Formats: sequence, C-alpha cells, structure tokens
Amino acid sequence: MAIQEETREAPVEEEHDHAPHKKLVIIAWSGDLDKVWPQMILATTGAAMGMQTTVFFTFWGLFSLVKDNVRITGDNWMQKMVAMMDRPGMEHLQLGKMNFAGAGPVMMKHLAKEHDVASPGELLQMAVDLGVKLVPCQMTMDLLGLKREDMIDGLGEPVGATTMLMEAQNAITLFI
Amino acid sequence: MAIQEETREAPVEEEHDHAPHKKLVIIAWSGDLDKVWPQMILATTGAAMGMQTTVFFTFWGLFSLVKDNVRITGDNWMQKMVAMMDRPGMEHLQLGKMNFAGAGPVMMKHLAKEHDVASPGELLQMAVDLGVKLVPCQMTMDLLGLKREDMIDGLGEPVGATTMLMEAQNAITLFI
Amino acid sequence: MAIQEETREAPVEEEHDHAPHKKLVIIAWSGDLDKVWPQMILATTGAAMGMQTTVFFTFWGLFSLVKDNVRITGDNWMQKMVAMMDRPGMEHLQLGKMNFAGAGPVMMKHLAKEHDVASPGELLQMAVDLGVKLVPCQMTMDLLGLKREDMIDGLGEPVGATTMLMEAQNAITLFI
Repeated sequence: MAIQEETREAPVEEEHDHAPHKKLVIIAWSGDLDKVWPQMILATTGAAMGMQTTVFFTFWGLFSLVKDNVRITGDNWMQKMVAMMDRPGMEHLQLGKMNFAGAGPVMMKHLAKEHDVASPGELLQMAVDLGVKLVPCQMTMDLLGLKREDMIDGLGEPVGATTMLMEAQNAITLFI
Repeated sequence: MAIQEETREAPVEEEHDHAPHKKLVIIAWSGDLDKVWPQMILATTGAAMGMQTTVFFTFWGLFSLVKDNVRITGDNWMQKMVAMMDRPGMEHLQLGKMNFAGAGPVMMKHLAKEHDVASPGELLQMAVDLGVKLVPCQMTMDLLGLKREDMIDGLGEPVGATTMLMEAQNAITLFI
Repeated sequence: MAIQEETREAPVEEEHDHAPHKKLVIIAWSGDLDKVWPQMILATTGAAMGMQTTVFFTFWGLFSLVKDNVRITGDNWMQKMVAMMDRPGMEHLQLGKMNFAGAGPVMMKHLAKEHDVASPGELLQMAVDLGVKLVPCQMTMDLLGLKREDMIDGLGEPVGATTMLMEAQNAITLFI
C-alpha cells in the first residue's frame, strides 16, 4: 500500500466518457502457429470492433512477415544457423506445443478449416484489409539481416521499442 | 453483446470515482501447470482485492475447465488426435518447462503443498468462491467439439473474442 | 533513438500533452534468454522514455536475479530437484525455442554483440542504472528457499501479487 501511494500520481480519467474503445496493441513475439492464431484473431476482432489496432512483430514473431521465398543469408555464420532452424513465412509456422513429426500444424489447419476458422495467412490478409497496422521490429530485422524487400507487402514502417511503447499509451496491450 | 449483458451482474462502477481499481482480465491461453498457477494466483488475488476479475480460457487453457472424465471424441479424426495428446482436467496438467519423465508436476505440487501454496484445482475452486468470472472461449469449444456439459460447474456462458475485448476495456489485461 | 526518429511518421501526439506517460509494469515470468531480452529491452526503453517502470520477477523469471554462485539447496529434496534443472544467474539462461546442444544462447549472444544489442546481464545493469525497479516475487523466493542475500544487488523489497496488481493500476502491464 505504501509503495502504491507514493507512486500513483494525477489519474487521467476524463477521457473515458467520450472515448469508450481503447486502442489495441499486440506485441507478436512468438512465431508458433498456436500463438499466431490468437495474435491474428484478436487483432482482426479488435479492428472489426473499431479499435485502432497495431501488431508489432518482434523476435520469432517477425518470421510471420517474411516472404515465403526469402532465406535468411548474409556473411554471418550465426544468421545462417538461425536460417537453418526457422524457415520464414506463414506456411512453415511450427506449432509450439504439439508438433509431433510435423503433423501438428497440418492437423490444426484442417481442424480449423472444417470449423470455419481462418488460416493464419488468411487472417494476416484479413488484418491488412481491416486496417490493422502490421509493424515489423527494426532491431529484429537488423539482427537477422532482413531488408524491407524481404518482407511481405502491406506493412507499416519498421519501428523500435520506443515507438511501440508510445503506441501502447492508453491501449489494451498484450504480449503474445 | 447480449451474452456479455446477461453474464455480467451487479457491476461495481462507482468505485472508479474515488477508488481507481481497474478490472482484471486474464486471457488464459496456456494449459501448462506453470502457467495455470499465475493465471489462478493473479485472478484470486485480484478478486480478493475487490477487482472485477474475469478469466477467459482459450486454446490450451480451455483444457483446465474440462471435466476430468471427459475424453474429446467425435467423428473427426483430427479431434481424436488432439485427444491423444492432451488429457483434459486440472489433474493432468503438464508443466511447460520441466516435465522430465512426468515427475515435474508431481514435484511442483508437493513443493507447493509444503509451502502452503494452493494447488491449481484448489485455486480454481477458490476463484469461483471469490467471484472470479471463469469464461470458456466459444471458438475453442467448437474447434474441439466440446459442449457445456463437458465443462466443470461454475462457469460463465461461453463467449467469443469480441466480448472478451469489450470486457478488457479499462482493465488490466494479461495474456498468460 | 536514431532509428526510432527516422521511422516514426505522422505522430499522433496531442494526447500526450495533458496525459502523462503511463507506468510500465512487466511481469517477468520466463527465465528463457529469448524472453529475458524483451523483458529487459522494454523495461530499459520505458525507463529511458521517462515511464515509471517496474519489473516483477516471478517463477522462472526469478532465476535471472539469483547470484551466479548460489545453488538452491535446503533440506527439501524437491528444491534440490529444481536446483538440478535450473542453474541460476544470467550467464546460464537457456533459450526457450532453439537450444540445440546448448549452442543457442552462445550464438544469440554473439549475434547480439555483432549488432550492438546489449547482453541480458548488461541490460539488467542498465535497467538498475536507469531507475527501473527490479522486484522479486516473495512467494517464489519462499518456494525455492531463497533469501535476500542469495539475490543480486540493486533489487527492491520482495513483494507479493497484491502489491504487483496495485502497481499495475493505470500502467501498461505485460506478462512476459
């Protein structure tokens, strides 16, 4: 209680009266298929509700935005090792938890299809169509030697953590 | 919207004027034991503090709410494959990180018991008792062919992402 | 900063004038290297932006704060089993996703070094220097039999979930 008292200052509450819907900011850190689904389902749902929605793709999440035919190369042997482990592009997404013999992603996609749940690639396109801002993390791009032309179309400018945290002010912010 | 209207009861909104306690919304995505603990500990703590607390169980997290004797069946061979991998119910929760030979969960539960930390099942019951709203994700239920009677007692109506994001307005929202 | 400046376009800033920057609360649950990075990068970025920033280290995340020479011991055989699995201290952090033969962390650190991204240990020190409040979870410390003298310097008093949720009021709160 003592800690909280000294750290709270000047609550800003008056905005709630006329601006009921918050912004939605999703930090898409994971590239696993079972995390990409909630990233995209929440983003498209938020946008459909009229929320100003931004998805910031960082770390493993960035791979969702890399063109399918791009291989991460460069002089750097370490980047090559990363390249061996993760093939970019939505079609190759691994499933974090259940990936036995590679059957998991195929199974889940079929499962989704039968039940009318869109595939990650469809959700990504739907997100763009609904006006979701898809933003790649500049630092991760630098780390992996990726350039703008390696990324899929329809993305916003790459940004850093500062810009992301600015966007997160007065937003519902989820780290997925 | 209709669902959200009927499941919310006795909204306590006037507290925002003089006691700015936010709502707490936990998106319980993981079914791993080491994630179920923070899901339930934070939910019960929030409710005990007087925060209007909702836990939205989705994806792997939904398995925490499935009755222990329910097996996921159905005509669908893919659902059966899911059924093979995840036995529902709190007593079978796996531990994401340390599960060597299945000893991890047993060990952690004993560890918790000696130190007076409640078990996940106890925390789930405690959450219900404290007035935490436990809400299953409709889409995940459909995906896995689960019906209301397959789920444990004390749950709110299944809802979708839209209702969850409505609840998340002006809440502390955590994706766990 | 240079990156952030050049990539920002059409900033929507007018709200920031009378609505100060929110607090930033990071619940550092994971001890994996690829999660410690975003924990520390976001914390240091937030602090550098002038946000009042707190990182609450719990569960696996607590291991980041344990002195490198401390081994978790005690009479309890279960604590000893935990001790076998996780060697505390930033230098031994595992990488959640790609840890093949232990090469992952070494590779990523080198990758980061070549690209001027600070190491987790450096980021932890930078966080302290920038005024980030690093707070260990009391319950996790009890669970693992850890005392204040087992933890690195520069930490705040251990707290529980209640204090953390109080701090999270009117904050951007991320579970990482």
